[in-house]
Amino acid sequence: MLMYNLIDKKRLKQALTQDEINWIVENFVNKQISNEEMSSFLMAVCLNGMNEEETYYMTKAMQKSGETVKFDYDTVDKHSTGGVSDSTTLLLAPIMANLGIKLAKMSGRGLGTTGGTIDKLEVFDGYKVDKSFDEFNNIIKEVGASIVSQSKDIAVADKLMYALRDKTATIASIPLIASSVMSKKLAMGSNIILLDVKYGKGAFMPTKHDAVKLAKTMVDIGKRDGKTVWAVISNMNIPLSDGVGCAQEVYSVISTMKGCDNNLLKVTKELAVNLYVMATGADRKTAELKVSETINNGIIDKFKEIIQAHGGSIDVIDKQELLLNTSNVITINASESGYIADIDALEIAKFVMQLKSKVGADRTKFQGVLLKVSYGDKILEGDALVTIYTDTKLTISDKNDIRNVFKITPKKPKKLKLIEKVVK
Amino acid sequence: MLMYNLIDKKRLKQALTQDEINWIVENFVNKQISNEEMSSFLMAVCLNGMNEEETYYMTKAMQKSGETVKFDYDTVDKHSTGGVSDSTTLLLAPIMANLGIKLAKMSGRGLGTTGGTIDKLEVFDGYKVDKSFDEFNNIIKEVGASIVSQSKDIAVADKLMYALRDKTATIASIPLIASSVMSKKLAMGSNIILLDVKYGKGAFMPTKHDAVKLAKTMVDIGKRDGKTVWAVISNMNIPLSDGVGCAQEVYSVISTMKGCDNNLLKVTKELAVNLYVMATGADRKTAELKVSETINNGIIDKFKEIIQAHGGSIDVIDKQELLLNTSNVITINASESGYIADIDALEIAKFVMQLKSKVGADRTKFQGVLLKVSYGDKILEGDALVTIYTDTKLTISDKNDIRNVFKITPKKPKKLKLIEKVVK
Repeated sequence: MLMYNLIDKKRLKQALTQDEINWIVENFVNKQISNEEMSSFLMAVCLNGMNEEETYYMTKAMQKSGETVKFDYDTVDKHSTGGVSDSTTLLLAPIMANLGIKLAKMSGRGLGTTGGTIDKLEVFDGYKVDKSFDEFNNIIKEVGASIVSQSKDIAVADKLMYALRDKTATIASIPLIASSVMSKKLAMGSNIILLDVKYGKGAFMPTKHDAVKLAKTMVDIGKRDGKTVWAVISNMNIPLSDGVGCAQEVYSVISTMKGCDNNLLKVTKELAVNLYVMATGADRKTAELKVSETINNGIIDKFKEIIQAHGGSIDVIDKQELLLNTSNVITINASESGYIADIDALEIAKFVMQLKSKVGADRTKFQGVLLKVSYGDKILEGDALVTIYTDTKLTISDKNDIRNVFKITPKKPKKLKLIEKVVK
Repeated sequence: MLMYNLIDKKRLKQALTQDEINWIVENFVNKQISNEEMSSFLMAVCLNGMNEEETYYMTKAMQKSGETVKFDYDTVDKHSTGGVSDSTTLLLAPIMANLGIKLAKMSGRGLGTTGGTIDKLEVFDGYKVDKSFDEFNNIIKEVGASIVSQSKDIAVADKLMYALRDKTATIASIPLIASSVMSKKLAMGSNIILLDVKYGKGAFMPTKHDAVKLAKTMVDIGKRDGKTVWAVISNMNIPLSDGVGCAQEVYSVISTMKGCDNNLLKVTKELAVNLYVMATGADRKTAELKVSETINNGIIDKFKEIIQAHGGSIDVIDKQELLLNTSNVITINASESGYIADIDALEIAKFVMQLKSKVGADRTKFQGVLLKVSYGDKILEGDALVTIYTDTKLTISDKNDIRNVFKITPKKPKKLKLIEKVVK
């Protein structure tokens, strides 16, 4: 086989065979295919697509480029396509563990975003994100849930391909995103996988339509592999949690565990209900009751247990204010009265990323904001919109930037639909 | 500017500005843009195209990446998009010189084909294809025509981009082919440029439609730059000359100069007539008379003069048989009677390339074939179809391969249309 001919086939919008796709992935990992050949191929895939079979073959080839984990008990897995202040995993883990359903989760770091789950876990001093398989296995068995960073031995091809896609503007491809996500999920040994596919300004997929298409592609890959894969389609036009930035997101998660009701909790509940139905076969009503009961009974002790099982300190759980220890704390107030009709997730994320870029590595996790209003809230001129936690000084222009993120209208905006649907 | 954003723009099928295109070409030459970024970009151009403005900006940026030649007298230039046994340049040079129109021509080597003009010129022992600008200039002034190899200082970006396109299956793009050709032509200082755009099995452009599209794109670039650019659209489904392979093509050119009438002469006449009209403003009829008269008066002495001006020996012109000096000479005969309805140019080219691949570098130029029949000829079983000149032995399978290149039908095929039209 010649890579030239395979690139040319995709350039001509022809479907590749399983052998051809295996050959490409294997030889790219073995460095027999150059980065320039692969870049050209990836752009051809971006623009000419891949059919369902090709996408499945690509997923399997990527999975086989690394190890596949096996547990001797049932586990579930959950994956979010990523969005601004998506901290559902931290809430979901103790809920599932208390429901007796074992969550085996490998997470990533933030890729050009405000922070991934692994970055947030490092807010807990001592939390060891790199664990051997035995340690991972033991924590799940004993505590009911473990969240560690993606093992470098899982889907080796994905890491190499993602790094190249990130440099060559070939990220935006449903077959490539789907095979990247699913190669890792299939390698993780869970037969039940719940996907949270987000759409909107603060997500990978800008439109609902694309999110559903991506979800269907990933559910199809799961089916072809004999797994139960469902996908929740959720809204990511406004930040999911009040906190944006690692420390602030953890602060919001803890507040939620202590009783605050909010969008983060709503989405997490939806994920928990679906996972419960998938794992037990119960009807949705029973699942909803079980999940609510579990949350009402309290999940913070289980959360502490999980953090400690990974070597993390629980100081910040009991003393939440430790998370807001920046040298400057600035609150921005509304310059008019009305209703909050938008809080632009992408702009908030950019603002926080800028705060982070201005401080040393040891302080990045503390830079962020806490929203003081939610979508649809009625506010008066002078009310607090957001509090900024930073170790640098803000300019007037910075303050205007963040104020512009909030759209205030005289009319009450229509209700926010957080959950669009579940693709099965 | 960030290359990532520019790739992304082209991925989204947006037009790039002149500044953006200049930036890409400059930074690619300066190695500030990586091969992998460029490969992704080139595939995006292949699939999403470029509009006329973008294509012109790309051409100019590539031209400016190298030197631009200036003559203190008028010159004309001619370029063929390439085809199997296209030796028109060798015939055209003495015709134009005898017509008093100066031809300043830089040519290339064969790119995955049976041989470029420069390879054919090296059949004349001692012909120096690399000349300084002063030498080039002097030969044109004194003899009326010079053919040398493409200077490495012309359109520097094109060389780098072509090498990358050749590896990453991004050759087949009209804006990229057009800008590659025209960046070199605009740098060559001629205000009159005639393009020979070939279509068919033995050409870059498989269809007439694509050939016309490419021709229009290149003519448009010329117009935007204030040059007179015309393009002859010609058929390349069958080899243009009886000889295929460097020595055999030169053999056919010499036979044509000595009086053989054939397709090669027909296409060359069409090119000469157009160049004469473009250079003098004469009407077509006058031009046709002038060109015929010039050919009838003999062009072989001028050809010898041109070869000698470049240091080449003219021995093979007087003793043509020196060109056919291989250890094996095998003639293939027809196994049935009928009409020659096809001589597949691509298959002939592949056959000759295979012959060349089996011998040492000093013998490659002598491997080739001489066709003994033309399209439309009536033949009898046992008639010679082709004579093969090789220093290796042929297998029965080789002989069958070459016999299959000829399609023999009981019915006379319809007349071959050599020249489709002229795009101005």
